[in-house]
Amino acid sequence: MIMTVEFPDEIFMKAALDEAQKARDKGEVPVGAVVVCNDSIIARAHNLTETLNDCTAHAEMQAITAASTYLGGKYLDKCSLYVTLEPCTMCAGALFWSRVDKLVYGADDEKRGYTLNKNRILHRKTKVVKNVMEKECHLIIKDFFKMKRKDLSD
Amino acid sequence: MIMTVEFPDEIFMKAALDEAQKARDKGEVPVGAVVVCNDSIIARAHNLTETLNDCTAHAEMQAITAASTYLGGKYLDKCSLYVTLEPCTMCAGALFWSRVDKLVYGADDEKRGYTLNKNRILHRKTKVVKNVMEKECHLIIKDFFKMKRKDLSD
Repeated sequence: MIMTVEFPDEIFMKAALDEAQKARDKGEVPVGAVVVCNDSIIARAHNLTETLNDCTAHAEMQAITAASTYLGGKYLDKCSLYVTLEPCTMCAGALFWSRVDKLVYGADDEKRGYTLNKNRILHRKTKVVKNVMEKECHLIIKDFFKMKRKDLSD
Repeated sequence: MIMTVEFPDEIFMKAALDEAQKARDKGEVPVGAVVVCNDSIIARAHNLTETLNDCTAHAEMQAITAASTYLGGKYLDKCSLYVTLEPCTMCAGALFWSRVDKLVYGADDEKRGYTLNKNRILHRKTKVVKNVMEKECHLIIKDFFKMKRKDLSD
């Protein structure tokens, strides 16, 4: 008997959190993402907007580009993207074009999350799982801005 | 007496159209963009989604990245971006983060244009000028898809 065991989303979200920590260690807003295909991580990325002086260098954008390069094709319709923070409109727009099969995110982004839009931004075939490891994903962002505010007031 | 002469938008849209032609010559959907700062073009880009196998490689995304690299800063609040086709949601989301001063576009995109969204996607400070050289910008796209359909039916 062949058994297919599906990996729980937490395993891959943990890898995305590892990426978020790399961003934090560089002084970047701590957001991390991974792309998974056939239960393997094929791309890892973290926010690099400050390091690269590029407002488009969000974790998701880089993860999409890296996964496409790995696969040699621009569609991620057999992949899942895991990201610690709810994607913004730009990243959700990119995920639309990528036709990603599944989007899994951790914390909600109450200011800039794509779900604030009235229109559907993602592709109609994209499944969404939200609030996986929500507490940890929220905490890393919250602590980062708390530290930033402390630095400013010192 | 010092006279300040503002360049007409058509001059820079013509440069964006030149970029669109480069895309067409590579078999890409012909969209081109330039970023202008102090009346000088600081970045030129065209759609490369097929060449790079990357759905994020729209002309605007690359123009934003190139302009930010040139300026050494992630904000384009003293720049104008000229693009031959109305930006999609992803690109408008990127323009939001860039805080671009002015967006000028040629043809409307009735299927994927960001203005189809009910919410405002661009930054509240971004000025928009639309339908500059609309006829030429529309024609290059129309001819491209006409040729593609012909290729498929041959």
